[in-house]
This record gives sequence, C-alpha cells and structure tokens, in this order.
Amino acid sequence: MRILSGMRPTGHLHIGNLVGALDNWVKLQEGNETYFFVADWHMLTTGYKDTSTLSQMTKVLVIEYLSAGIDPQKSVIFVQSAIKGHAELFLILSMITPLGRLERIPTYKEQLRELSDREITTFGFLGYPVLMASDILIYDADGVPVGEDQTYHLEFTREIAEKFNSLYGETLKIPKALFSPVPKLLGTDGRKMSKSYGNVINIDSNLKELKDKIMPMPTDPARIHRYDPGTPEKCNVWHYHLAFNTPKEKLDYIHEGCTKATIGCIECKKILIESMANKLGPIWEKIAYYKAHENEVEEIINDGNEKAKKSAEETMKRVRRAINLSF
Amino acid sequence: MRILSGMRPTGHLHIGNLVGALDNWVKLQEGNETYFFVADWHMLTTGYKDTSTLSQMTKVLVIEYLSAGIDPQKSVIFVQSAIKGHAELFLILSMITPLGRLERIPTYKEQLRELSDREITTFGFLGYPVLMASDILIYDADGVPVGEDQTYHLEFTREIAEKFNSLYGETLKIPKALFSPVPKLLGTDGRKMSKSYGNVINIDSNLKELKDKIMPMPTDPARIHRYDPGTPEKCNVWHYHLAFNTPKEKLDYIHEGCTKATIGCIECKKILIESMANKLGPIWEKIAYYKAHENEVEEIINDGNEKAKKSAEETMKRVRRAINLSF
Repeated sequence: MRILSGMRPTGHLHIGNLVGALDNWVKLQEGNETYFFVADWHMLTTGYKDTSTLSQMTKVLVIEYLSAGIDPQKSVIFVQSAIKGHAELFLILSMITPLGRLERIPTYKEQLRELSDREITTFGFLGYPVLMASDILIYDADGVPVGEDQTYHLEFTREIAEKFNSLYGETLKIPKALFSPVPKLLGTDGRKMSKSYGNVINIDSNLKELKDKIMPMPTDPARIHRYDPGTPEKCNVWHYHLAFNTPKEKLDYIHEGCTKATIGCIECKKILIESMANKLGPIWEKIAYYKAHENEVEEIINDGNEKAKKSAEETMKRVRRAINLSF
Repeated sequence: MRILSGMRPTGHLHIGNLVGALDNWVKLQEGNETYFFVADWHMLTTGYKDTSTLSQMTKVLVIEYLSAGIDPQKSVIFVQSAIKGHAELFLILSMITPLGRLERIPTYKEQLRELSDREITTFGFLGYPVLMASDILIYDADGVPVGEDQTYHLEFTREIAEKFNSLYGETLKIPKALFSPVPKLLGTDGRKMSKSYGNVINIDSNLKELKDKIMPMPTDPARIHRYDPGTPEKCNVWHYHLAFNTPKEKLDYIHEGCTKATIGCIECKKILIESMANKLGPIWEKIAYYKAHENEVEEIINDGNEKAKKSAEETMKRVRRAINLSF
C-alpha cells in the first residue's frame, strides 16, 4: 500500500521523533510504497515571521531522514514546496471546505492559545488542515501513520475527500489512519517532550551531550538514597532503556538492581548512554557522511521531487478533469 | 505601465461589461503592457457546486474578449488556472493574512447575505481577496482598472503586498487603482444590471433579441401619452443612447423630440436599436468567426498562457528567494 508522512523542518530531529516516528517509517519501507516529505510550506503557518533558516533546515531534515534509515532506493523523499500541485489542490479544496469545520478542529484553538505570542490568527494558519489534506490526497495515499494529535487532521482529510468525490465523482482516494504501537518518550525532565522546555535530545547530539542530558535525569523519587529500592516502571530512565533497546540481560540486571537497590541510578544511566550510543552511533556516522556530501543529498532530493511531481500530476489531472478545468 | 484585469466566466458578457469595462480595456491596450485573464478558479468561490460548464464558459469568455476588441498582438490573454503560480502565491500570502482583515472586507458580508442559499461560507470564499491579490501581484502590475465594488479588494492587495515587503524585503510591486470614467448602465428594467434579475442584454444577442429587450423598456414616466413631453435625463433609454454613441444630430433630434413631445418613445427606441446594432454588429461577426475557428482561439490561449507563465515565474522566483524556499 502507498504510505505518506512528513515533518516540518523545525530544527534537528530529536529522539522522540526517532523512536516515535522515524523508526516506524523505516519499518514501513518494507513491502510498501513510501513517500516521506519535508513540510516546509507548513512552517509558514506558525513561523512566517522568521524564515531565514527555512532552506537550511529543510536540507538538515532530509539528512536526518536519510541518517535515521529512510532509504532513497525504497522511499520517495521530497520537499513539499517543490511540488506546486500541493498549492493547487489546497486552493481547490479550500473552495469546498466549510469555515466552521476548520474552526472546530480541536488543535486549532489549542495552538492559538499555546502560540498566542506569535500573531498566528492568520488565514493560512486556519487553513493548515486543508494543506495537510492536499499533502495526503495528492499522492493517492492508502495509509498515513498518525500520532494521537493528528487523528483530527486525518479525519478532516477523509471528510473533505469524500465531499469532493460526492460533488465531482469518485476522484480522490480516501486514506486510512495507520496506528502503530510506538514508544512515547517523555522529555528528560519527565514533562512532555518539547523544544520550548529544553528537555529534548537531538539525534545529532554527540556522546558528551548525551551524558550531559541523561546524567541529571530525575529517577524514581522513592530512590532518595543509594540503598532505597525503586520501581523501574515509575522511572523515566527505564522507559528510555526500553525505547533504546537495552539488551534483555542488561534490562533484567537493571530491573533487579533497581528493585533490590543493588545498583545505583548512575550505573543504570551509564548503561542507558551505552544503549543510546549504540543506536545513535550509526546515525551520527551517516549525518557526518551526508554533511560532507551535500551534492549527494541534493541529488536525492531532486530525484525524489521528480518522482513526487509525476505522482502528484497524475492526481491533479484527475482533479482538474473532475471539476472541468481545462489546463 | 503594466495593467492587469480579469473577469469570472459567469456566462456571456453583457452590454454593462462592454461599456463599463471592455471598451476601457481596449483603450488601455494602446501604450501599455496589458494582461487580461479569465478568472476560472474564482468561479469556485461561489459556484463550486456546479462546475459542469466551467471549461466551456472559459472559452466563451475568451472569444468575447477577442470579439470586443482585445487584441492578442497587443495584450496577453490567459486563463488563471493554467498559471499554477497564482495558487502558490495564494498559499504563501494566506500565511501572512490576518483572518480578521478578511472578515472585515465589506463585500464579504454583503455577498454572504446575497448568496445565502448557496452554502458559500467556505474557507475559499473567505480567501477570495487573497487569490485576487495573487492574481495582481504575480504579474508586477502597476495598475488595475477598478470599479467601485473592487476598491476594497485593491486596497487589501496593496496592504498585503506591503506586509510581505516589510517582512521579507522589497519583493512585490504595489499596484495602483486606475479609475476611468466609464458609463454605468442600468438594467433594461431600470434596476441594477444583474443576470439574476433577467434585465441584462448579452453582447452576443442578435437583432431580434435586442428588439425584444429594448422595445418594452420603461421610459420617463411623465410620458404617459404620445403628446406628453418628457425629460431625457430621467429616461434609461437616453442613457443607453449615450453609452452606445448615437450620433450627435440624432441625439439632438431625440432630445428635442422628447422634451417637445414631437417624437414617441418607439421611434426613440428604434434609433437606439440602430446604434446598438452599429456597435455590436462587428462584435457579432467576430464571435461567429471565432466560433468557427476554435483552433485559433486555443492557440491564442496557449500563447497567452505561455507568456503569463514566464512573467509569473519571474515574480515567484523572487518571492521564494525572499522567504528562503529553495525550490
């Protein structure tokens, strides 16, 4: 089946993106037709005031997609703004989208509150879900991996595609939500992972940075002293171990050591850093490689854009025919 | 200077469009660089529910532009939906357009009321002025001929271009409104000319249709009987004479005949029909010609689209560079 997903180029990927999305994308590459894109136009919805790093951040994100295991031989990797059809479909879908439907999307009001300092009560910000619908529908996607906060958007996408089809005849494929059981990591301070809280670990962090972030992590509050036993399931560090595939025998060792107070949190964290370095090490190498071979990255992007353009154009031809636009 | 204007393909041009806009466009062709387009995407803002004739009506409008005197050697004649850059610029401008600004455009609420049966409280209908701004700004237009009801839209266009320039540096040209003294014709029943009132005369009406529309026109109510004198200035037919260039000596004859009751309204109307046929005759011939030579019309459109695309792409390159989009 054809699967599509994308991320906004907000900066470097962090470990939450890695275990919560990218690892899943990598798996989905096997046996599916996968499209992964950088949603640079979407950055303008909340970040229109400063676009100075937009182009650079787009390339960084592609490098990190590649380094996390997205394979240009298996997936189409492309940049949203290179495929003008997204804008054309956005314009067309906007005509059949009731205003009230957009205002009722729960994330809309939420974000307006959260980002109230940014003057984002713009027409484009309200239209965010319409652009997202275009991103998906233009590639005839069968499935879209969604996290909890995107279920509303996919529901909206399905609705608007159904409305289009009922007005103009069967034209757009109705995509399904793909729910995958992925680990949901909290930030290093135990709160929701968020760049604005400074509690994220970027996937390009080096070993020293890893240590600086992991060693101060709060653990099970019951372990005040070295000899106080703890409950791993209540400890954020334990969930990091699970997410970073600490080997079974070490997990057993930690679990017993924690509950019986035979090891301290420092030892446990050192093992975590090892697990993280094991997982991130190959990614660091690839990041270094692609940074030193920017031409290769550009070729990959250009190639992906070409493939995406072709696929988008096929859908747009059907769309234009359906609504009787001749060009 | 570069001048741009366009119309929605709502059906045939009527005599109000002719004397109120097209005649002016024809004049503007001399000594200016003129761009005239068919705003087919705009049709979707109010007419998304039935698009079955959209493609055909687009061609009809081009034929009538040509027949009314728009010369493809002098003007770029093109179709909006063929130039995808309009959609791209619409998307980008939407990001910097405050929602409240759109809601306050007076024609927005007015039209919502007038067309309340059409379910047009859509996202796209609210964004109408943003699309209009894209239409204008993408061609670096210096001037836009505006009627009364478009002054708000041009004002909005100027504002949004200025906002873009202040955010991202001087990129978009700020267009000026061109006010031309044009005759404003009322409908044949004396009300505002409107297709929904059935009081319009299409420019492709034949002589019989002209007679059927003109002969029943109400005249100065003071002329109840043939021997009652009238006041031409109070008579809608008199204003039609002025708009259709009835020659000076005939105007004098009518004016005197009306005020002294030496001629009747029927005679006056027969002279008007003659004047209208004089003006419309060459247009009818051209319409017949282009209908019989559709290939020629298509070539003209394709040629215009190519020129428009080039010009639009130049602006879009500047726009993308200004906001740091690489593709």
